[in-house]
This record gives sequence, structure tokens and C-alpha cells, in this order.
Amino acid sequence: MFADKSILRIPGPTPIPPRVMQAMNRPMIGHRSGQFSALLAETAKRLKPIFGTEQDVYILTGSGTSSLEMGVVNTVQPGEEAAVLVSGVFGERFAKICERYGIIVHRLEVPWGEAVTPEILTPFLKERPQVKAVFATHCETSTGVLNPIEQLARVVHEQTDALFIVDAVSSLGAVPCEMDKWGIDILVTGSQKAFMLPAGLAFLAASERAWKVIEQVKPLAFYLDLKAYRKSLADQTTPYTPAVSLVFGLAEVCSMIEEEGLPNIFSRHVLMRDMTRAAIKALDIPLMTKDQYGSPTVTSLNPEGRFDAEELRKVLRTKHNVVIAGGQQHLKGKIFRIGHMGYCDPLDVITVVSAIEMALKQIGTDVTLGAGVKAAQEVLINHV
Amino acid sequence: MFADKSILRIPGPTPIPPRVMQAMNRPMIGHRSGQFSALLAETAKRLKPIFGTEQDVYILTGSGTSSLEMGVVNTVQPGEEAAVLVSGVFGERFAKICERYGIIVHRLEVPWGEAVTPEILTPFLKERPQVKAVFATHCETSTGVLNPIEQLARVVHEQTDALFIVDAVSSLGAVPCEMDKWGIDILVTGSQKAFMLPAGLAFLAASERAWKVIEQVKPLAFYLDLKAYRKSLADQTTPYTPAVSLVFGLAEVCSMIEEEGLPNIFSRHVLMRDMTRAAIKALDIPLMTKDQYGSPTVTSLNPEGRFDAEELRKVLRTKHNVVIAGGQQHLKGKIFRIGHMGYCDPLDVITVVSAIEMALKQIGTDVTLGAGVKAAQEVLINHV
Repeated sequence: MFADKSILRIPGPTPIPPRVMQAMNRPMIGHRSGQFSALLAETAKRLKPIFGTEQDVYILTGSGTSSLEMGVVNTVQPGEEAAVLVSGVFGERFAKICERYGIIVHRLEVPWGEAVTPEILTPFLKERPQVKAVFATHCETSTGVLNPIEQLARVVHEQTDALFIVDAVSSLGAVPCEMDKWGIDILVTGSQKAFMLPAGLAFLAASERAWKVIEQVKPLAFYLDLKAYRKSLADQTTPYTPAVSLVFGLAEVCSMIEEEGLPNIFSRHVLMRDMTRAAIKALDIPLMTKDQYGSPTVTSLNPEGRFDAEELRKVLRTKHNVVIAGGQQHLKGKIFRIGHMGYCDPLDVITVVSAIEMALKQIGTDVTLGAGVKAAQEVLINHV
Repeated sequence: MFADKSILRIPGPTPIPPRVMQAMNRPMIGHRSGQFSALLAETAKRLKPIFGTEQDVYILTGSGTSSLEMGVVNTVQPGEEAAVLVSGVFGERFAKICERYGIIVHRLEVPWGEAVTPEILTPFLKERPQVKAVFATHCETSTGVLNPIEQLARVVHEQTDALFIVDAVSSLGAVPCEMDKWGIDILVTGSQKAFMLPAGLAFLAASERAWKVIEQVKPLAFYLDLKAYRKSLADQTTPYTPAVSLVFGLAEVCSMIEEEGLPNIFSRHVLMRDMTRAAIKALDIPLMTKDQYGSPTVTSLNPEGRFDAEELRKVLRTKHNVVIAGGQQHLKGKIFRIGHMGYCDPLDVITVVSAIEMALKQIGTDVTLGAGVKAAQEVLINHV
């Protein structure tokens, strides 16, 4: 096996396209130079259509989690109340961040693998109209659920005056997310998923409604104070030294997204999801999520005792050079997750399915080689 | 001019060595893989000699400022008192971060260009023995002063029980800084200066004394909660998705540092400082700092009306493709700063000096071409 030909099919970090790597390789420039200012301002503008917003998009140097915290600390004050919709690890992370700041958290929890629906959110918020913000996860990376954010936004605005704050780390750029049209007040994401970059940048946009609140909040944070980013972006700069090489890469990613076109990108991801799900069904491995809520970016599977998920992952890695993800927290060792987002296309799905079939056979599972591949092929040829 | 042959002589970001660029170009890997865990743990260990510590060094995804905030928020609680030694922009930044968290700040301010000395620190702390922490800047990037941290540490521990917390963003890796031997309790730095990497990583180590305090503090921060980093590093991982490509680069930087050897790196930087200062004196441009406190990484100059610093910078940039830094805050437009750290060697100093001479002539200043170069050459040939 070629060590560097390892096939990375986890839900982030995702593979880096060669032209993005090349862009990141430009010689370093000063972060206060006119050249960088122009690049930053232009690139921030090119993020707007991906966010579905007319608002400015801020570029932060940090992991995705830093943007979640930025969404919390600039909008809700200690002692105020917030609702957090928890469908897995990253919903729970929003809740933990809120609690760290002394915010009173009302958790709406659904079993992992299920989505938060308008039907369960409506009565929950009807009883808690006093919450200042509702925090939700678009794609819950830990389970592969895509929560119906558009409908949830409607419920939030019908039932409360709260801000609606959405973590779209593992969906934005792969799945439609219309911040302005849907009524999302703060939308955050990271660089290492559908944005096809290494981790290290996070992005955030806020609605006019959100800005009215943010202006009143004196955040207990310095690096994550959103007002500093707004003031700096107006001057085409950042408050603190940005990860310049990742911004070089981001500009190239914007070109790739513009060339393919968002509608085509969204269709490609839906196709990859449908191929994956068809293959998995043909192989008779239980999917963790219903078709309706299956994310176009990641698919989770629960072998439920039919075979050992960790053994499968190990054989995939050692014999086929294919890397997929395991479960997190209480699902650790029990499930596995296939990432199909970013620099990934339908033939990559065929490859990973074929490797899973072989690995299943190699760990002694009763499987018909080629059955999953055939199902995925059938989905693909009906599309192209 | 070749646009990409621009000569970057600002005090960070600094040029990236080709082999570090190449290392950052490796295909992406999973951040929870065994391969990344081994790399992270090994690389964190290799940072210890650079910090002069036996303690663990934590790798954070963020700008240098995020590590300053981490040093504040994990050690001092709202309502407690801290002393901040302010000799420029970055000392002031420590003070602002403290104030943001409701910490009562005692500022010891010296005029920009001067160092904080044991003589002025001793009476200051004698009157304020109640402070919980003393914050200091090793190299104050905005003025080019290297504060005498070893002696200041002694004063802090003689006069108080406070923790001594040091920002070494623009010094560590270029200038000796012996955390354990000198009695520094928390030492922080960033990746884009002497570490020869793009911005995006920050590093922090804490003494045993500091850990006793940190363990008692419930920080008002989530992303910057140091205890989460300790817990994760014990498992060879990070609490949130790290900037993997920068960690690839960091490992290569560690190799370069080990190959050259810290004593040689320190001598190279002293030599570059001495060459720069000799040249500038020969050109009769006033240096902002006394020889005793001139940093080996950056030299600041104040033309004091003899010529226009911004005009000089513009001609250097447009006619010679050489980028130097201007002043910050109240020194904006008044001074200029030459960075000589990281991937920079004595002949680079000769180049920048020769370009400055020509640009001075071109903006109509009375200057003898070659006078500065000759002075720098004389320093160099006495060393090699």
C-alpha cells in the first residue's frame, strides 16, 4: 500500500484538493498588507452566497468549536435562558458552552440518530417563550442526522422572540442553508468539512436582529468578541493575526465552489448520500437515521451485533487503506460513520462501498461481494 | 519584479522554509487517528527544550492572542488583582484581556521603546503584594524591546506569591527563555514568528505552581479551558479539531531547530540584531531602543522628522519588493520596524540594509550608499 494514498472517508477533516494545497503554498505575506486586506475582504464576500446571506461573514482563526462559543458568548448573558436542541455530541457541546457561561439551559433531547422535528419543538418552546436564544445543529456529525433547520426556524420565530443560532459545521457548503430566507440569526461553520481545507478557520455571520442583541452584550471573552471582528472587517482586516495560508486556500475553495455551482454541489452530495444508503441497505446493515433525515454529508451505521464495528474499521484501514470514523461518546466502538463530503465524488463512494464489502467478508460476516456496489451503481446511472 | 519574490522582513508572519511548506502539503489525515496522535504527542515533547521546561506544552488552534487569553482566564478570577507590565501594544493587550474578565489591573507602564527593569518593578510590586499574577511581554513586538524576563521573574517571586505569566510570541525559538530555570509560571507563544510557520497555532506551558492555581479556577471560557487540553494531551489528542496541516509543519520546524541547535539559533539572531543596529547607526537613523534591550528578533527605528517612515516603506515595497513594518497605535506612520527572525540569515540583513539605503536616497534623504552595508559586513566578518 502507498501510505500517502490512504482514502480519508471520515466526516472531517476531509481531503484537500491539489489546487487548494498549491494555493496554500504561496509565499507568506504580511497580514496587514494591502494585498492581504484585499484578499480577505474579497474572500469574505464570496462566502455570502454559501451562507445564503447578505450579511458580512467573519473569518476566525480557530476550530469549529470556537465559532460555536462565539455564537453563545456574544448573544446570551449569564443568568439568561436558552434552549438547546440536542441530537448528538455537537448539540450537547452547545449546551455545555452555555452552561460554562452560567446560562440557564433548557435541553430538548432526542435519541441519537433521530432528528428534532417541528412537532416536538413547538410544544417545547410554547412552554419556554422566555428563552433568549435557541441553539441547533444542522448536520449532527456524530449521528449523520440532518435536522430540518428551515422548519425549526419557523417554529422558533412563531413561538418566541429568541435568536436562532445554528451550527452548520458539517453541512454548510454541501447542503442548502439559506440563512436570510429561513430566518437563521447566527450561522457558524468550520473549514475542514465541505470547505475542503485543513482545520484552523471558522466562519460566522449574524442577522440584523442578532446584531441588535450583540451590540447590547458585553461578552466575557476577548478573542471571541464578535464586535472586534466587525470593526476590523470594515477596515478589511482581522483583529488578531489570521491563518494567512488557510485564507489563501479559502480563496481557491471559493473558486472551486463558484465553478461547480452550489446547486450542482448540493446534487452531488445528495447523490453520494443516496448511493451510500442504497449500498448499505443492499448489504443489510442497519442505518442509524431514517431516509428523511439522512445527511448528504455523512452516513452512520449501527451493526447492532451483526459484526464488530471496530474490527471492520481496523481491516479497512490495515488491508485496504480506507479510513472511516467510529462512534463518539456512548456510541464509541458501536457504530461507524462514512463521510461523503467535500472533495469526494460518486466513484469515491463506489470505492468505499467495495472496500467495506471486502472487509466485511474478511472479518467473517456473511456478505455478497458486489451487492452494495451494484446498488450504488444503479443509483448513479439513473442520475448521469 | 517577481511578485512572489517579495522579501518579507516584518516581525511576523515570517517566511516559511520550503521544507516546512512541503511538510504542510502532506495529504490530510484524521485528527483522531493513531498516526496523528503519535505525531501530536511527539511534537509536543519536542517543544519542551524550546520552552526550557520539563512541563507539557499544549498546542492550541488560534492566533497568539488566544494563548494570551488562555494565560489570563485559567489563572485569575474576576475581582482578583493582577499586575501588567506594559511596554507597548502587547503588554497593553494583556491588560485589556484582564479587564474584559473583570480583573483589577495594576498597570506598570514605561515609555514605548524602554524596557521594564527590576529597579522599577521592585517598588511597584512591593506596594502591591496582593496581586495574583504578574503579566509580562518578553519581546514587545511593537517597539523591539526585549524585556529582561529572567531578572523580572526574580523580583516577582521575591516580592509576591503571584504567578509570573509571559508572552513570548515574538521571542521564543529565537531568544533564550528558560521557563523552569527562570521561574516563569506560564509561557505562551504563536507559530508565525521564530517558529517559521503560518499563523494558526499557539503554544502554552504551565509550571507546577501554576497548575495548582489552574486546578482551582473554573474558567469563564470553553475553547480556552486549559484543563481540557491537559486531559486530551494525556490521551495524545486535542479537545477540538486541530489545524492538522500546521502540526505537520511544526514537526518539520522542530527538526530544523534540532539540526541547527538552539545555541546556534540564538547566536544567529544576536548576530542579525547586531548587524542591523550597526548598519542603522552608520546611517544615522535613531534606534528606538537602547543596545542593552534591543531584541534579537526585531529592530524599531524612529526617523524623528529626518524623513517620512511611510514614504520609505512605500518605496521599499514598490521599487525594491522589500516589506518592512510600520508603527502601531500612536506610533503609526512615525516609526518603522525591521523583522530579523525565523527563516532569515545574515545575508538577508545585508539585503534589507542595502534596500533601505537606496530607498532613503530615492526619497531624497542625505545618505551615503553602502555605509550601512559596510557596518553590517564588519559585524558579520568578525563572527564567521
